[in-house]
Amino acid sequence: MFTRINHIGIAVPSLAEAVPFYRDQLGMAFKGTEEVPEQKVTVAFLQIGESKIELLEPTSAESPIAKALEKNGPGIHHIAYQVEDIEAAIASLVAGGARMIDSVPRNGAHGARIAFVHPKSSHGVLTELCEGGH
Amino acid sequence: MFTRINHIGIAVPSLAEAVPFYRDQLGMAFKGTEEVPEQKVTVAFLQIGESKIELLEPTSAESPIAKALEKNGPGIHHIAYQVEDIEAAIASLVAGGARMIDSVPRNGAHGARIAFVHPKSSHGVLTELCEGGH
Repeated sequence: MFTRINHIGIAVPSLAEAVPFYRDQLGMAFKGTEEVPEQKVTVAFLQIGESKIELLEPTSAESPIAKALEKNGPGIHHIAYQVEDIEAAIASLVAGGARMIDSVPRNGAHGARIAFVHPKSSHGVLTELCEGGH
Repeated sequence: MFTRINHIGIAVPSLAEAVPFYRDQLGMAFKGTEEVPEQKVTVAFLQIGESKIELLEPTSAESPIAKALEKNGPGIHHIAYQVEDIEAAIASLVAGGARMIDSVPRNGAHGARIAFVHPKSSHGVLTELCEGGH
């Protein structure tokens, strides 16, 4: 059902400070930035093998990433897994007893359709399903 | 320098409770467990594409994972990246101004050689380099 890690989302106060570490010190390919108004963040994409690192800088104090930074400081915010059929993946998780934050997919970066599993069902790890995108 | 995500390390109080979520609900291939005395943990390995999820259960209250669970609860503990030459990767990071927890590689699970970057240098994300292993 899950084919690969699509991305790791990392909350940072400043892309300008964090991008050089991943691009220059770790040597990942920088793939640009995109604003995602639904999440009130600007995202920087860095490729690593078949996965990406997504650095998330809040664009507003109401962003979930601003709240995460305030509560926990900078760090890993979520893991996203690639799925082929997000409705089927959600149905399978719910049938298995998992609680979803999104029981209906919504829009993510790069044109993907996404849904979050509730951390109570995923042992403290905010877990995202991701279909499509580029 | 970095070829792929080797694994995501996730701190859990109980493998018996966490493994079924990843194996049965997310459908990842369970690859067994291994005790790593150096870290005072038992590790469960689950394959996802070219990467693994490593669930980490402490075997002692002195384990760094026991301390992480106490401080932050269950959740993502670190990201490990595969490198071809760990000494060269450490030298390059240090030359770029990064601080290492391990400036000399030590033994990890599955016969790998590993070294941790200090989170102060990696924007709050505990970052591991991993050479070899199986």
